[in-house]
This record gives sequence, C-alpha cells and structure tokens, in this order.
Amino acid sequence: MVGLGRIGRLHAELFATKVEGARLVAVCDVVERVVKEVSEKLKVKAYLDYSKMLEDPSIDAVVVCTPTFLHAKMVIEAAESGKHILCEKPLTVTVEEANTVLSKVERAGVKLQVGYMRRFDHAYSKAKKAIDAGDIGRPLAFIGVARDPGPPPGWAADPSKSGGIFLDMLSHDFDMARWLMGSEVRRVYANGGAYIYEELKEKGDLDVVNICFEFKSGALGFIHGSRKSAFGYDLRTEVLGSEGTVYVGCHHDPNFAIGTSSGLTYRGVEWFLGRFYKAYVEEDRCFIKAIVEDKTPLVSGLDGKRAVEIAEAAWESIREGRPIELV
Amino acid sequence: MVGLGRIGRLHAELFATKVEGARLVAVCDVVERVVKEVSEKLKVKAYLDYSKMLEDPSIDAVVVCTPTFLHAKMVIEAAESGKHILCEKPLTVTVEEANTVLSKVERAGVKLQVGYMRRFDHAYSKAKKAIDAGDIGRPLAFIGVARDPGPPPGWAADPSKSGGIFLDMLSHDFDMARWLMGSEVRRVYANGGAYIYEELKEKGDLDVVNICFEFKSGALGFIHGSRKSAFGYDLRTEVLGSEGTVYVGCHHDPNFAIGTSSGLTYRGVEWFLGRFYKAYVEEDRCFIKAIVEDKTPLVSGLDGKRAVEIAEAAWESIREGRPIELV
Amino acid sequence: MVGLGRIGRLHAELFATKVEGARLVAVCDVVERVVKEVSEKLKVKAYLDYSKMLEDPSIDAVVVCTPTFLHAKMVIEAAESGKHILCEKPLTVTVEEANTVLSKVERAGVKLQVGYMRRFDHAYSKAKKAIDAGDIGRPLAFIGVARDPGPPPGWAADPSKSGGIFLDMLSHDFDMARWLMGSEVRRVYANGGAYIYEELKEKGDLDVVNICFEFKSGALGFIHGSRKSAFGYDLRTEVLGSEGTVYVGCHHDPNFAIGTSSGLTYRGVEWFLGRFYKAYVEEDRCFIKAIVEDKTPLVSGLDGKRAVEIAEAAWESIREGRPIELV
Amino acid sequence: MVGLGRIGRLHAELFATKVEGARLVAVCDVVERVVKEVSEKLKVKAYLDYSKMLEDPSIDAVVVCTPTFLHAKMVIEAAESGKHILCEKPLTVTVEEANTVLSKVERAGVKLQVGYMRRFDHAYSKAKKAIDAGDIGRPLAFIGVARDPGPPPGWAADPSKSGGIFLDMLSHDFDMARWLMGSEVRRVYANGGAYIYEELKEKGDLDVVNICFEFKSGALGFIHGSRKSAFGYDLRTEVLGSEGTVYVGCHHDPNFAIGTSSGLTYRGVEWFLGRFYKAYVEEDRCFIKAIVEDKTPLVSGLDGKRAVEIAEAAWESIREGRPIELV
Repeated sequence: MVGLGRIGRLHAELFATKVEGARLVAVCDVVERVVKEVSEKLKVKAYLDYSKMLEDPSIDAVVVCTPTFLHAKMVIEAAESGKHILCEKPLTVTVEEANTVLSKVERAGVKLQVGYMRRFDHAYSKAKKAIDAGDIGRPLAFIGVARDPGPPPGWAADPSKSGGIFLDMLSHDFDMARWLMGSEVRRVYANGGAYIYEELKEKGDLDVVNICFEFKSGALGFIHGSRKSAFGYDLRTEVLGSEGTVYVGCHHDPNFAIGTSSGLTYRGVEWFLGRFYKAYVEEDRCFIKAIVEDKTPLVSGLDGKRAVEIAEAAWESIREGRPIELV
Repeated sequence: MVGLGRIGRLHAELFATKVEGARLVAVCDVVERVVKEVSEKLKVKAYLDYSKMLEDPSIDAVVVCTPTFLHAKMVIEAAESGKHILCEKPLTVTVEEANTVLSKVERAGVKLQVGYMRRFDHAYSKAKKAIDAGDIGRPLAFIGVARDPGPPPGWAADPSKSGGIFLDMLSHDFDMARWLMGSEVRRVYANGGAYIYEELKEKGDLDVVNICFEFKSGALGFIHGSRKSAFGYDLRTEVLGSEGTVYVGCHHDPNFAIGTSSGLTYRGVEWFLGRFYKAYVEEDRCFIKAIVEDKTPLVSGLDGKRAVEIAEAAWESIREGRPIELV
Repeated sequence: MVGLGRIGRLHAELFATKVEGARLVAVCDVVERVVKEVSEKLKVKAYLDYSKMLEDPSIDAVVVCTPTFLHAKMVIEAAESGKHILCEKPLTVTVEEANTVLSKVERAGVKLQVGYMRRFDHAYSKAKKAIDAGDIGRPLAFIGVARDPGPPPGWAADPSKSGGIFLDMLSHDFDMARWLMGSEVRRVYANGGAYIYEELKEKGDLDVVNICFEFKSGALGFIHGSRKSAFGYDLRTEVLGSEGTVYVGCHHDPNFAIGTSSGLTYRGVEWFLGRFYKAYVEEDRCFIKAIVEDKTPLVSGLDGKRAVEIAEAAWESIREGRPIELV
Repeated sequence: MVGLGRIGRLHAELFATKVEGARLVAVCDVVERVVKEVSEKLKVKAYLDYSKMLEDPSIDAVVVCTPTFLHAKMVIEAAESGKHILCEKPLTVTVEEANTVLSKVERAGVKLQVGYMRRFDHAYSKAKKAIDAGDIGRPLAFIGVARDPGPPPGWAADPSKSGGIFLDMLSHDFDMARWLMGSEVRRVYANGGAYIYEELKEKGDLDVVNICFEFKSGALGFIHGSRKSAFGYDLRTEVLGSEGTVYVGCHHDPNFAIGTSSGLTYRGVEWFLGRFYKAYVEEDRCFIKAIVEDKTPLVSGLDGKRAVEIAEAAWESIREGRPIELV
C-alpha cells in the first residue's frame, strides 16, 4: 500500500481484515508518523521509500493511493517490478501519460485495475444489471449530477496536478456513463465557469460545469458538476430507457429529519464511507480475484484511459466553445 | 372561452366558480355537443363561431385554448375586437408569428397573458421567492428534466402545428429558466433523436432531447426532455446557487406505496390537475387582476415570444450540430 | 346544500360543475352575505331557512355541511322530508344520536352517505384494492398517524359539539381502519393528554392521543393523533400484511425543497384540497350514482355510526384507564 | 472477544483497526475453524475456552457477543476476573438475572457497557441532540416501528433463550424510547400474535406486536414490531414535541430506484452494516474511553436492565390482557 491518506488507509484496513486471499504485507508513505502508526496498528512492514518497497519479493501487488500527478510514474515503476497494480482514480493526468502507462503495463504482463469504485457499489451495480437485463428497454439518455460539499483540498486544487474538475471529480461520472450505457462517447460539448472559489479560478480550474455529449450508440449524455453543494454531497445518476428509467444516488440522508415551523429539514449524506464502504470492500476483493483467477479487472487500464480522454475533450470544448469529436 | 378541450373546460369551470371579479359569459367550440354540454352546465351562452362571439359587447376578455397553430390568428382577431386575451402556451408556432401578434396586441392596447401556469404553482413560486430573496446566493445553474408519460395526442404530434418537442413541451421549461434565473438565454446547443415513436419520427419531431445553454448573466442551463416516462410524469427543476440549491417537482406520488418481495413501489403522479389545479386558479385570477388593475400580466406577450425564440434556436442547433447564439 | 363553510362551498362548486347527473338547485346558510355571494356566483336559489329549503319540491337530495352537533337534527329533518342525504363526517356526536338517525333514515327509505372522503382518494383506494387483491397477503396490523397543523377552529374546539379529538379528527382514521382491514374493531385502549392547548384542556378535549385496538379478525390496530404538527399536515396510514405492506399519506410536499448550509428543507403539505380535491369530486359523484342506481353508498349510515362507536369507546378507555370491549 | 458470529467478528475487526487506545489481544469461540481463521487474519491469540482466556493477564476487557442466554453467566465470570465488559444487547433474559449481574459487576468495580448501538448512530444521535436542545419543544410522544426482513435464526427463535420479540428485537426501541424521551416508562399495554411463522408460535413467541405505553413524564409511547417486512428492514422512530417532530430511520434505500410501467420501485435497506457500521465504531471507542477516562459508559448496566424490565412487562400484559404498571 502506498499513500496513506484517508482512502489509502481505508484500503489498508480492508486488505488487513476483509479481503480473502490477500495478506497485507507493507505500507508506505512519505510521512513517517503515519507509516509508523498504520504499520503498528495493522502489524505490517513500514516503508518510507516506494522503490525499496517494490524490491520486497514477498509483495505481489501494489495499491497506489498517492496524488494523481504521481500515478503514471508509480504505476510504471510497479509494473516494471512485476507487481500487479490497483491504482486510485484517475489513472493519469493526461491521455499521453495514460498511453505510456498502458503500454508499459502490457509489456510487463501485470494486472492493472483503476479505482472507479462506483462500479462495485450496490446501487450502481443494480442499475447496470437492470439495464443489461433489458428492464428499461434500450438506454437512450444518461444524466449525471455530481456536487461535492466543498472545493478539493491541497494538490487537488491545482488542475495541472489533478486534471481539474473534469478529471479529478467528474471522471467518476464519465466512467459510469460508459459503463451503464455500454457505449463509448463520440462527441463532447462543455461549458462552465469558476464562479465560487477564487483559488480555483486563479489556478485555471472551474467550479460549475455542464457537459452535453453523445454516445456512439446514438444515445444522449449529460453531466453537471459543482464543487459546492451547501448541505452536502448531491450525487445522482439516471438512465432513461425506451421502457423505463433507473435512478441512482440521492441528495439527502433519509435517516434523520426534523420538522419545525421552518419546515421539514433533512441533512446531507455526511459520511462518504457510509455510502461507499462496501464498494471499497468489493473493489479490493475484485482486484485479488482478478490476480488469482487471471482475469481482466472490472475496471481496466483502458477504462481508466477512456475517462481521461473524455476529460481532455471537455477541456478542449471549454477552450474552443464548440463540440469536440473523440477519435 | 374558446376551445373546450380538457384545459379549456377547466378554465371555464374556474371562471364560473373561483375567480372573483370575473363572470363567465360564453363558451365557444367547433364541436356542437361539447358547447351545448358545457354551456348548459355552467349556465352561459354557447357559440360555434368564434368571430360571432367576439362581436358580443358583454364580453371584455377571451381565453384562447385552441391548438397552437390557431393561436396567432385568434389572438390577433380578439385584439382587433378590443378584447383582453389569456392565451394558452405557447403563444405561437414561430417567432415571426409572435412578432406580428405582439405588434397587433400593442396597437390594440389590450392585455395579453400567456398560459405558463407553472409561474402560479406554489412550488415554483417558492423557488422564485427563495432565489429572489438571496436564499441560495447567486444563481449559477438551471437544470430541468421533463418527461411526459406518452406522446402528444392529435395535432400536437405534428411539429408544423405544435412547434415540436422544443416548443410544445419544453417551452414550459424555457419559461421557468428565464424566470427563475432572472436572465435571458444567449446561446443554445441541442441534441436529440426520435428514438421511440415512429409517428413522431415520420413527422420530423424528436422524442428525447438534451439542451445545453448559457444565460446572459454567465450562468449555465440544461434541459432534458422525453416524450416517454414509463411510470408517469417526471418533472423536475433545480437551481444551483452559490449558497444553496432549490429543487422543484418530483417523479413519484409519495401518497401511496406498496412493499412486497419485489421492493417498495410508488406510482407516478397520475393526475395532472392534482398538481397544477391551484396554479390554474391563480393564473386565471392574475389575468382578471391585470385587467382590473391595469397591470402587465405576470406572463406577458414578450415572455411568450422569448420561449418561442429559444425553441427555434434549439431546432436550428439540431439541424446544424453547433451552438446557436440568440440575438 | 346547507352550510357554506370551506367544505360546503367546495361541494357546491363541484355539484355545479363536475358532477354528471346532478343539478345544484339551492344553497342555504344562516350567514346572509355568504348565501348571496355563493348563490349568485353559481346561479342557484338562496335560502336562509333550512326547513323552507326542504319544502322545495325541485330538490331531491341535501348535502349537510353544518357543524357536527347539528347533524342529527338536520339529517332527520331531511329524511322526513323525503330527501336523500350526504352528511359531512362525523354522522353525529353520540352513538345514541346515531341510532336515532339510522332508524329515521331507514323508515324514510332515503339514501344516507357519510363524508369520509378518504375512501374516494386515489391513494387510499389503491391501498384498498391492493389489500383486497391479496397483494400484501393477510392484513395483520393497521397503523395510522394523524397530525393536524393546528387546533380546531370555533365550535370544533368544544368536545360536546364536535365529539373531541377521537371523533372530530380521528374518526377518519377509524373509518379507514375498518375499511382497509375489512373487519370491525372489538377492543380499544386509549391514552392521551391535553399537553399543548390550554383552551382544549379547559373544555375537556385532548390534543395528543394514542389508541391501541384489536380487530374481530384478530389483527392489531394503532392510531396516533395530534392537534399540532409544527410544519404542516402529517397524515400517514399503513397496513402490514403477511406478504407486504401498503403505505398511504406523507409528511411533506415533495414538490419543493431548498438546500442551504442548514440542510435540505421541505415544506408541509399546505393545501388540503390539493390532496383531496379529487376525492371530493368522486365522493359527490358516488352519492348521485347511489341515488340514480338505487345502491347503498360506499360510506353508509352504518359506517358513520361505527366510527362514532369507536370514538366513544376511546373516551371511555381514557376515563377508566383500561381496555374497553365493543359490543 | 468472545463469540465470533457476524457481530462479534465485526467488533474484532474494529478493535484491530479502528479503535485508538485499544489493542485486540485474543478471540474466543467454541467453533475451532472460526477461531483459527479470525485469529490468523487479525494476528491475535486464539481461545476455545472462555475461562482460560479470562486468565490471560494481558487482557483488560472482554467483549461478549455470545447468545443472550449465556450473557449473565459470562458477564459475571468476566467481572469476577476483574475485566471490564462490553456486552451485546440485551443484557440478560430476565430481570432477575439482570439484578444478579448488576450487583456482581458493582462489587467487582469493573465497567459494564451494553450494546445498544443505536445510541452511537449519527441519526439517533442527532435526534437526541435536537430534543435535548429544545428544538422540538417538550417531547410528548414516542413512536417506533421496527420490522425485520425475516424471523430470528437459531437459538434466537426460542423465547426462553432470547427473551422473545419484546426483548430480543424490541429492546432496541425500549432503549431509544427511554433515552430520547429522557424519562422512564411507567405503564405498558401490549397486544400481538404469532400470525406468520408456525415455528415461533410453537415456541411461544409472537411475530407481530403493538405496545402502548406511558412515561413517568406523562408523555405517550408506542412501539410496533414485526418479524417480517417483505421488502427489507423497516425501522423508524419519531418523537413528537410541542414545537416539532424528529424522524429517524427509513423504509427504503434511496440510492436505487427503477421506474417501469409497474411504477417506481425502491429496494429495502439491504446491508445492515451499511447503516450501522459507524455506530459500531463509535460504540467500541466509547467503551475504551469509559475505561481509560474512568467514566460511566453511555449505555450502562442499569440501562440494560431497564430494557429487560419493559420487555417483561410487555409479556405480562400479553398474558393478562391489561395495562401493567412498572415499579
């Protein structure tokens, strides 16, 4: 495990307790205190140096949870050390990087899974199953709304390191669009602005965007993203089919409400892991299964690259003010 | 009252019972049986000939509920007879017609109100009040989803008579977008297809569309429309602001649910008037008030024309595959 | 039509416009201004004297919308004049009165329908149909929650005139319990208090109550009532069956919400008639149909009496602190 | 850790990864395969014999997750070995046992916490905070609905071992009632039956029950429980106050819905831990904190006993058909 931030630490705990067939061997981070704390709690080896950890022959696979701009380099290094890789999303900052990563990984013959964990979430999975079973007829339109409670922290506020809102935040939705609709995107038109956060504006990122797109199948797509949602996460996805509609996600926690003379007030979905905890468990299990059974992971390196391509096309559309065709 | 279809008949009943300051004098339709039935029930005069009704000096105002393609002609005739006019939406089929109507109405010095009744609905009104009061900060994005249970009946299936999906159906949403955001639309990009109904395809209409647009204020807009929603109406509008979000509309009737081993099933919002009955009452009251107090109606002739303009731009974007600037 | 309060006036408008086979002939109230206004608007005769109106031979049926304590007398008078009767709920204040009413009505051979309009509401109707169709298996438990936004106005605040909370307010729920479960109530245990409104306490009424009961079928029942709900109506009913559950009603209007840093706030269901308008239409149609086709109305005089019986048993349980058996 | 069923195993994982200040030392179960698997995964000692584990001087505290009927004996043994105890709910099968446990624990001077984990759940906690802050005024009525998807497994189907539906299932709600209302229960009236599961009937348990009760504060209480809910968990709690109402829990998962011509269908809340995972984390942290900081745990042994008392009173009311006073 490399990168012991919130998500990295979660993966570490899951591999230590929940994932059959896996044994957590070591954790690595550049912050010594964190490495010490986690390695002692989980009774595993501690590394401050990623390259050293890769030399450890008892390690078969690496989970990369470092900042996006480090992904390409670290995934390539892992591949060249013959380790299988689970890489947090997005795969890379640019399509060019993604191409390099994919060719190195292919040459090394290792597995690469990208961390679009929504594919393992029970709700998105049910949507996928319902669509594939024909329950809503032919899928005609994908609509995604993604609003985060606040701006991205630290390095993620710099689009040159994170890929900006289209990649850092909305690539989850691009991945869902491709997966649920079973079709690639062929044309993207985006608009947006930096309306809210001065810091994002200065660094060249946007905070509210709309993306209209078309699939190769002829179906329609739309994604709206915002870096602010005053009361908490607002994540919703729907697919309209010729015979029905599936809805995934929600904008409030149904488990608590208070009604006073001001109205009936719900809170936002506060606890991110409360929603996706089990998806992370399944994601990690899927990765181990892909290695043990020698299968392609559910979210492949190519899936990772596709999301980067759409994000790049969205940025191009913003710059040029016109629809962009994907190759 | 001219045009005694479902909506015309509703207006007739409301003016006969609910609208202070108004007295229903006469009803008119080309179908003799209907005119007889309604006029007897409501104890008012019956006309088969619209021009004859306009000669009646006891009539001060006319409510036009006939098919869209007749609006321009009938509104002009009423104006030239010196009657005030409440015209069902949309005002006309084309912007050219709308221009003629507006100049004739202005010359005649009569009131013209257009029937975008959502402005009188309690939920949309609350949204407008909350936005104007600054409750959600600066409005940044408008998102509308409009799905009807089925295809338009009769003449409305012919886009040359109805203006097609963008005008006949989605002009409600264009009106809401302009009103809630307090800004005109400056740029429209639309895509869509005739995926579901062969009949609509043959006549040149579309059944599922996405419209991405921008406001002069710099805010973003998006409207999705579908002529099909398998379980019933799915009408939702939301406005994201810098400090909050308002949500209007819903996709199911919360008043009944049945939970069995298949899950917990809600029904669609079945009864259109259950949702908008009171809005029609308020719309009719507003019209009378505008006449009596000599004010501009809440939905003016110009509002009516603006919705037609956006619909025309959407059609142009579909034909040309690029964003269209509005003048 | 006698009694032109909010509900009486609604019935008058419905009979004047919506009910096939009926012709509104006259309206009656003790307030002269109201009778004049309504009779002129609806173009019908005006009466200040109920007995005089009953002498009018062009009248076949009477709708009684006066305060509860006048029902027994006025229904009997109408029956003895040979008029069919639609009586607003509850039928009478006491079981004794109800017995007299029923025997007089029977002797007169006229129809008597009681105004439990929920039976005509689309949501309660769907529940009834689902239960009768066996969709939830054997019905095992009925749970009703009924909270009004505020205390009853005028005469209804006096339990000697209204029957108090158990009759004036919760008899709707008693009627639903009997109807949905298809069984009579055999045993009632109630507790409650006058916690909120001093005025109700002084007059001997209660404002929050719980009623636990059992059906002759062996099924369980529970009703909770409150004269206060800070954010608006909170009316919910559910029936648990051996194979499923039906839910009716709701505690907020899904059509508007605003999300700010305080949370996501819904409003209450503000407009009573927005929920039950169509139920009143159907109720009135049912009454006319029962007369024309010589059928027992869906809510018979006996149904009216049964609700009074349960309310009396609840009051007795409160006084005695023990479960009361119904005969 | 003793008892490695679903909940015991969860606690073991949490103490091994999530609870600061605690170190998981050993696990114990009578099933050898399970002890081996868990102890190896978590790198801790394995015991098959509970008494032996209690002799281990490196152990300061024990978490008891065995079947209810073993609680009294095992808690007492732990107390007499000087270990602090976190005991899964309910504390014991009978009030008599609870009295013995409490006196032994007091004499041993160890901490005892009972596992009513809802007190640590974010939604119930918010309700408690809102009530204590006076946001809903004076609390007047508590209403709880608890429906499990299916009958209890194994030993829990035997009321002599589990305490039956009132204790095994509804003591969660009794604990919530006391905690949220801030008052003890003084009078209990219960009715119910064994309508659904033949097996429960044979063993003397019930599957659908209603419990009407009163608090010493004068407020009202009601709890409905069912061992069946066809589409999944249906757990809801509400507290009506003089100025507002709080609602906790829900009956469907808002995160997925499918709308087809049959309606809009939600699924039940499938994954129990998805709802309460974080509550278990906080519960375990609270236990450690109570030991380290020498405080009374949030759910004390007395709280545990109170829930058993109410359950016993409910059973007595069932047998005698009358309200039972608590001492």
